[in-house]
Amino acid sequence: MANPTAAMMVIGDEILSGRTRDANMYHLAGKLTEAGIDLREVRVVSDDRKAIVAAVRALSAAYDHVFTSGGIGPTHDDITADCIAAAFDAQIDVRDDALALLKRHYAVSGIELNAARLRMARIPDGAMLIDNPVSAAPGFTLQNVHVMAGVPSVFQAMVEGLLPQLVGGAPLVSETLRIDRGEGDIAGPLGALAEEYPMLSMGSYPFQQKNGTYGANVVIRGADAALVRQVKQQLAEIFAE
Amino acid sequence: MANPTAAMMVIGDEILSGRTRDANMYHLAGKLTEAGIDLREVRVVSDDRKAIVAAVRALSAAYDHVFTSGGIGPTHDDITADCIAAAFDAQIDVRDDALALLKRHYAVSGIELNAARLRMARIPDGAMLIDNPVSAAPGFTLQNVHVMAGVPSVFQAMVEGLLPQLVGGAPLVSETLRIDRGEGDIAGPLGALAEEYPMLSMGSYPFQQKNGTYGANVVIRGADAALVRQVKQQLAEIFAE
Repeated sequence: MANPTAAMMVIGDEILSGRTRDANMYHLAGKLTEAGIDLREVRVVSDDRKAIVAAVRALSAAYDHVFTSGGIGPTHDDITADCIAAAFDAQIDVRDDALALLKRHYAVSGIELNAARLRMARIPDGAMLIDNPVSAAPGFTLQNVHVMAGVPSVFQAMVEGLLPQLVGGAPLVSETLRIDRGEGDIAGPLGALAEEYPMLSMGSYPFQQKNGTYGANVVIRGADAALVRQVKQQLAEIFAE
Repeated sequence: MANPTAAMMVIGDEILSGRTRDANMYHLAGKLTEAGIDLREVRVVSDDRKAIVAAVRALSAAYDHVFTSGGIGPTHDDITADCIAAAFDAQIDVRDDALALLKRHYAVSGIELNAARLRMARIPDGAMLIDNPVSAAPGFTLQNVHVMAGVPSVFQAMVEGLLPQLVGGAPLVSETLRIDRGEGDIAGPLGALAEEYPMLSMGSYPFQQKNGTYGANVVIRGADAALVRQVKQQLAEIFAE
């Protein structure tokens, strides 16, 4: 059975302007691989209603799961929840369950639950809340779209709670072989192995060493751990001399 | 006059599997902002012909420029050049100008120019080469798509050479104000200013301090430097007490 597929949407002008280096994509990619969910595509879009709605619709139709990060805070540029609702023609308003979470959190911390913070209780009809153990304001799942915060500590906590609830596939096994040769020397034998074992995926990731010479990490992935190890061994022997 | 728009495509399974943390998006985003080119969207796609061709076509039609990174090396999973050619129905083969660059490079370094390395001289008809001062194998520009390497040192060198050849716009001026309050306190006054000055873009980027309290960096951007400074001052005074 094929693994479930997924896409991610990173929402925020701060990533596209180069002000902030995204951390959530890298984190989620690793977690999905562990869970046996194949991340096939990531889109980074700006805080723009039309762009967000179009991307959500396209990705939701194409993949089993869509994970979003960013744009669910209290400020005027936090428009993700409303855009997700619009993408699915769902109603959205302050919802009692989310409001209760915020009330409890702010009562304990002695912070005023003002109109801006109330925005964080806006949840589309039919959505399930995603727990936020860091700062209370919840994410939510609407249809196959999982909406989470952009602040990395909150995003990671939400992923931690959400992933065990999703049905994953068989995690792929991967083995990495470092070869201290230029990719141009590796390409021939590697291509032949890739053709011989179409059930494995083989990728070559070149690097340049401090002394200027080149090498590559060859990553072999597949569901059959013994086969992955065997092919890694074959490749190692080719470049052993 | 509006600034030129751009999209980026990051090509490579190693990013989507979480094996490698992308560095090129963050680098390019900063350089484009300096050059006055508005990066509107980034897509990360896998080493899959259909996915790459579809993304190139969509982004090339929607934006003034498309920048790609990854997939132009000598191994079997390096399929970017062929996909770009396919996206524009262009012929592709080993081209004399690219071949001459490789021959010179490998003659000097004493490395064999084998069949795998020859793949790096495959350039679509009608494309202009992009200089690679690091490892010779060139990138190329076909129509409005700029195809560059995935290895960060090579990608950065290619961007360095390419960007001055593109017509940029007026760089936006940006000022950042750090406010040591929760975003929920900032949102009201900030939203009012954003409505009062629609020609400026204002973003709020929250952070959590080590002691657990929250703050946010508010970024105000616009073409009019004096106005950006004035509004920053207004905002600072609101939160000065």
